[in-house]
Amino acid sequence: MKKRSALAIGIALAFGGSSAAWAQDDAARIRELEARLAAMEAQLQAVLSVAQQANDTAAEAKAASQVAVKKEVAETARSFEFHGYARSGTTSHADMFTVRGVGPYITPAGELGGAVGRLGLETDTYVEAKLLKNFTSDDGSWATFNFMLADGVNSNNDWTGGENGVNVRHAFVEMGNLASFQGTRLENASIWAGKRFDKKNFDIHFLDTDFVFLAGTGAGVYDVEVTPDWKASFSAYGRDFLNEDNDSVKSYVFTANNFIGNWQVMVNGMRAKQNDSNGSGRAKTGAHGLLAYHGKSFYGLAPGLSKTAILAGRGLGAEVKRLGAVGNLLDDARAVRFASFGTMELAPGWAIAPAFMAEVSKDRFNRGDKYKWASASLRLSQAITRNFAMQYEGSFQRMDLDSTFAEAEGNFYKLTVAPTFKLDTLAGFFARPELRLFASYLKWDEELNGFTYDGTAREGFGNTEFTGSSKWLVGAQMEVWF
Amino acid sequence: MKKRSALAIGIALAFGGSSAAWAQDDAARIRELEARLAAMEAQLQAVLSVAQQANDTAAEAKAASQVAVKKEVAETARSFEFHGYARSGTTSHADMFTVRGVGPYITPAGELGGAVGRLGLETDTYVEAKLLKNFTSDDGSWATFNFMLADGVNSNNDWTGGENGVNVRHAFVEMGNLASFQGTRLENASIWAGKRFDKKNFDIHFLDTDFVFLAGTGAGVYDVEVTPDWKASFSAYGRDFLNEDNDSVKSYVFTANNFIGNWQVMVNGMRAKQNDSNGSGRAKTGAHGLLAYHGKSFYGLAPGLSKTAILAGRGLGAEVKRLGAVGNLLDDARAVRFASFGTMELAPGWAIAPAFMAEVSKDRFNRGDKYKWASASLRLSQAITRNFAMQYEGSFQRMDLDSTFAEAEGNFYKLTVAPTFKLDTLAGFFARPELRLFASYLKWDEELNGFTYDGTAREGFGNTEFTGSSKWLVGAQMEVWF
Amino acid sequence: MKKRSALAIGIALAFGGSSAAWAQDDAARIRELEARLAAMEAQLQAVLSVAQQANDTAAEAKAASQVAVKKEVAETARSFEFHGYARSGTTSHADMFTVRGVGPYITPAGELGGAVGRLGLETDTYVEAKLLKNFTSDDGSWATFNFMLADGVNSNNDWTGGENGVNVRHAFVEMGNLASFQGTRLENASIWAGKRFDKKNFDIHFLDTDFVFLAGTGAGVYDVEVTPDWKASFSAYGRDFLNEDNDSVKSYVFTANNFIGNWQVMVNGMRAKQNDSNGSGRAKTGAHGLLAYHGKSFYGLAPGLSKTAILAGRGLGAEVKRLGAVGNLLDDARAVRFASFGTMELAPGWAIAPAFMAEVSKDRFNRGDKYKWASASLRLSQAITRNFAMQYEGSFQRMDLDSTFAEAEGNFYKLTVAPTFKLDTLAGFFARPELRLFASYLKWDEELNGFTYDGTAREGFGNTEFTGSSKWLVGAQMEVWF
Repeated sequence: MKKRSALAIGIALAFGGSSAAWAQDDAARIRELEARLAAMEAQLQAVLSVAQQANDTAAEAKAASQVAVKKEVAETARSFEFHGYARSGTTSHADMFTVRGVGPYITPAGELGGAVGRLGLETDTYVEAKLLKNFTSDDGSWATFNFMLADGVNSNNDWTGGENGVNVRHAFVEMGNLASFQGTRLENASIWAGKRFDKKNFDIHFLDTDFVFLAGTGAGVYDVEVTPDWKASFSAYGRDFLNEDNDSVKSYVFTANNFIGNWQVMVNGMRAKQNDSNGSGRAKTGAHGLLAYHGKSFYGLAPGLSKTAILAGRGLGAEVKRLGAVGNLLDDARAVRFASFGTMELAPGWAIAPAFMAEVSKDRFNRGDKYKWASASLRLSQAITRNFAMQYEGSFQRMDLDSTFAEAEGNFYKLTVAPTFKLDTLAGFFARPELRLFASYLKWDEELNGFTYDGTAREGFGNTEFTGSSKWLVGAQMEVWF
Repeated sequence: MKKRSALAIGIALAFGGSSAAWAQDDAARIRELEARLAAMEAQLQAVLSVAQQANDTAAEAKAASQVAVKKEVAETARSFEFHGYARSGTTSHADMFTVRGVGPYITPAGELGGAVGRLGLETDTYVEAKLLKNFTSDDGSWATFNFMLADGVNSNNDWTGGENGVNVRHAFVEMGNLASFQGTRLENASIWAGKRFDKKNFDIHFLDTDFVFLAGTGAGVYDVEVTPDWKASFSAYGRDFLNEDNDSVKSYVFTANNFIGNWQVMVNGMRAKQNDSNGSGRAKTGAHGLLAYHGKSFYGLAPGLSKTAILAGRGLGAEVKRLGAVGNLLDDARAVRFASFGTMELAPGWAIAPAFMAEVSKDRFNRGDKYKWASASLRLSQAITRNFAMQYEGSFQRMDLDSTFAEAEGNFYKLTVAPTFKLDTLAGFFARPELRLFASYLKWDEELNGFTYDGTAREGFGNTEFTGSSKWLVGAQMEVWF
Repeated sequence: MKKRSALAIGIALAFGGSSAAWAQDDAARIRELEARLAAMEAQLQAVLSVAQQANDTAAEAKAASQVAVKKEVAETARSFEFHGYARSGTTSHADMFTVRGVGPYITPAGELGGAVGRLGLETDTYVEAKLLKNFTSDDGSWATFNFMLADGVNSNNDWTGGENGVNVRHAFVEMGNLASFQGTRLENASIWAGKRFDKKNFDIHFLDTDFVFLAGTGAGVYDVEVTPDWKASFSAYGRDFLNEDNDSVKSYVFTANNFIGNWQVMVNGMRAKQNDSNGSGRAKTGAHGLLAYHGKSFYGLAPGLSKTAILAGRGLGAEVKRLGAVGNLLDDARAVRFASFGTMELAPGWAIAPAFMAEVSKDRFNRGDKYKWASASLRLSQAITRNFAMQYEGSFQRMDLDSTFAEAEGNFYKLTVAPTFKLDTLAGFFARPELRLFASYLKWDEELNGFTYDGTAREGFGNTEFTGSSKWLVGAQMEVWF
């Protein structure tokens, strides 16, 4: 491109001397320029063509990466999701006899939902594996099919066929952003039907307890916008009770669950018409209410979070946590529960999580029974390195139980030390997976041993076969959710 | 680039007046042009270099998006597939007692395969989760491992461990496009072995019934090309019967399944040598045939589809749907069944699906028994909005049953209204997921109650505990497949 | 761009004749050139802009394909893995009675772990489906959650709910490349807890037997670097025994597993304190050792591989394969086992795999019992085409068993021919999936029939209901792992 034609240069030299030569020289130079310019114009065409081709290729590549591949990724990867929860480990004590019954519901109050701090007490392998299939439409509406397979066993054996509990706990479809709902109060709502745990359930992780656990097979709608600040969800869940004649009877829970700012107001009604078919006094209806505050700080005192709730129920609602899940409650059964927990950072690397729960109930399973219990728990986490933390948990429970068959009053104490490995110890209390070793010391008032709810003769403490008044437990465990 | 050098402009002005000045002026302008041209040539080089670089980057990006990412997507996403079917919901009636036995096989003829319209009758949670692993070779041959986990429960409870039926229904490998088969009649064939539902099974969705349901553990070959229009599949499926001594005995089904244009001709032979070990008359062999027409229109009358079949069987083949799956058939058992259904669009937003099935059988379970039943069903779907449709289903069944232990003659009627939510109501009868509410009215002739196949005293209607002659059912359900 | 302005051309022609005309002509041409040049400069700007835009688009596309999509692929596809093992098929014999008990552990020595060649003997459907969730941190540390669902049934039926064994066999988390371990002997180590099969287990595929099968629920560390050539793994696994009172008792296996070059030295201690609660002589402790050589050639004779081990155990360690998994061993129980296998290519398309295993044990389940058995097996694979191979397997077992309740001495022989389809027959013994047809001839010394370990009266051979001294089996099967 840069090379001048030899002829043009020759002409330019020949006309180098006179005025005419000047002119001729000029003319030659102009011709040369014209030639160069013409060449450049052609060249420019070529460059433009290259640039345009590059642009086309780039656009193609962009389209390919954004449409074709993304579409493929979308249709395969995005349409499928794998989620889960699992804990598994082994726990032993000096006698190396069975640890059946050991867990956060170990105490006599466990039957009533009276959990104690879970760290270093869990002996089971519990797994939830969730497979999701996502559907999306061109108009932005979506649906998700959620399948959850769960298993819970206490055995440490590698093959637990026959003694296991593999079962399907989620089989539901939820749909949202429906075109037909645009411009209505349902614009941001989703609807669902099938078998599921309710989406709005929330828990005190450290006590392995939900505030409310609403689950079963039914249908509902989430997040109807009553006012911009008030979202309401409605549902009907079916359950199956075995009534006193061991017949399976239908039971239903009807729920209105309101979120107004940080406040939650939930009301539930239960109905199991055939639960009292021979006049045994079993409840056929239930009423239940929850008032909760979901704090975005540690009780307003420090950054962190806290959740507090008061629950009350009557009849089938007297099981205030597992809504409508217990069939042998009396018509007059009444219960009130208070629950609260929070998490905060004490200092860099030090985090703390107190939890408290207490319940009073009466006329629950037998006319005249009276139950009071209160649990307090404190977990402390100390990050030692990026991957290693020391966790400590102290837990206390006071019980005053009268089942009419037996009475028991006393305390339970637990102290656990758990060296813990994590991918990042500074990622917070709820970062998983965790691998833990642990040693727990359990102590309880011996008069609690042998307490029975139904008159069956028992010897051990709570659900265990432990006699005496204390026990050391050591073990190892993993926990993960994702 | 556009800016002239200040010097060149100065020179051009200075020589502005005379002829010589003209020439000198020209010369200066030419020099200026030469300079500009030289600058542009260099510039052009730069532009070309940019364009070429752009081209290279674009080509790289294109290659990256098409090769690298695609390969990764291929090796991960494509090698795995998630498919499934699920229905789950809750159903109740005024008594709120158990709904055990309610479903498309609710009537006394249900035991014989006499299904009625399923909409608004299903009470169970049934899930099939399929995980596929695809293998591909460089020569284009492929294999797929298909794993299906299924569960069916009637309970609405969230934990059904112990009462559930979680089991593996698919564990097979199918291979195709094998290099060794090229140029033979097996060129487009695939071979398989393991546990599976046969690939060629087809159903009347609205009655929840397969035309034929061939399943078990075995091996076979699909789509051998006898002539270009005639594809034949062959298989042997094993089953396990409990014989009359409650011993497990081996049973086999041998199948030749021919597709000639729209016609299907299937012949099956069954063999269970030990099924009659003590001379009770149980069939040790069976013969079965099916002739079907797979219509690509609504009976030639309108766009849509229709499928029609006639099935006949003897001995173990007298269970004409679930091939070789029933062991307590007599040697002389005979059955003939006719089945047909179709779907079409009546008008924009209105779709209709009639279904019909009838069977005559005798000497089935007891010498001298005689069974006749016919079911007709009509489903109508009316799209109200993009996401909401009304579905209606009317169903009728006529039964004339004589089990030698009991006789029953009468009718069953069902009418269902089901407000239904979908992602796209115009996507057809078979688009899923669907979320439905429903109300069904069931009516039957009271003399059908208490009918028994084996002399066991029963009171209820069909498989249920319903007495009387009618029932309202209300409920909610989701259904999905993908 | 190429077109000159009409005016410029006109001027150039008008001044064509004289010197002044020359100059004027030149001037006009120069003006024309200037105009063209200016146009080109503008044009060049446009081209540059196109090229730059192309470059930007290309870079965007490249970034998109490499970052966004890759990230998405990474976060979805890479974070999830699907793996599995499955075999499924149907097997029959002339009587078409049950094939219960048929399999590689068919002989009386099967109870002791005395497997014979598996080809053409397997009758079950066994599936392992593994779902993995991978976690990775920015600092390169990783964790994996491993979930395995397994099922084993002998029935050929499509629905095996109730008789199946669906259970969870893996629920563990393993973590590695932890920042806190860098620079220590744990730098390349990984730690784990939960329920699992040990990662270092290894097997003789052809006899369906592990050399050691360590599994259960526990915790451990893999690949601690003692010296650059010596990697040590440590673990504690819990198990649950049913003791002689049918109580569940805790049992533990403690393992140190060393790999020093090609050598493996593994020592195991077992403890089940409550296993002998009423003085029945059941072992409460066990000791076990394994010395193995992992050959990277066929016994140093030819390319291929070979693995050889000697195992010895006492007490709970006298079950030398399934470590700590058998609770009814006596305190004095002793066993020594030798096992070896190898694979090599005999000639192009011909591959051979011999396997040998022998064991001597005594005072195993009853004081005074004595067991000796030796199994030899030879599998031969002959590739016929790319997709079809003939496989042959001959197997022999010598038994000399004295359970104190019964004595048995004799031989078992098996010969199998298995036409096999694969995606690539030259990919080796371990390439899967395989679809096989098979015919096996089994022969045994009739005096082995009815042998019993515990005095229960039995008639059949080993675990089967086969009488006589020989049997033909035919069947079809698939096998896959991935």
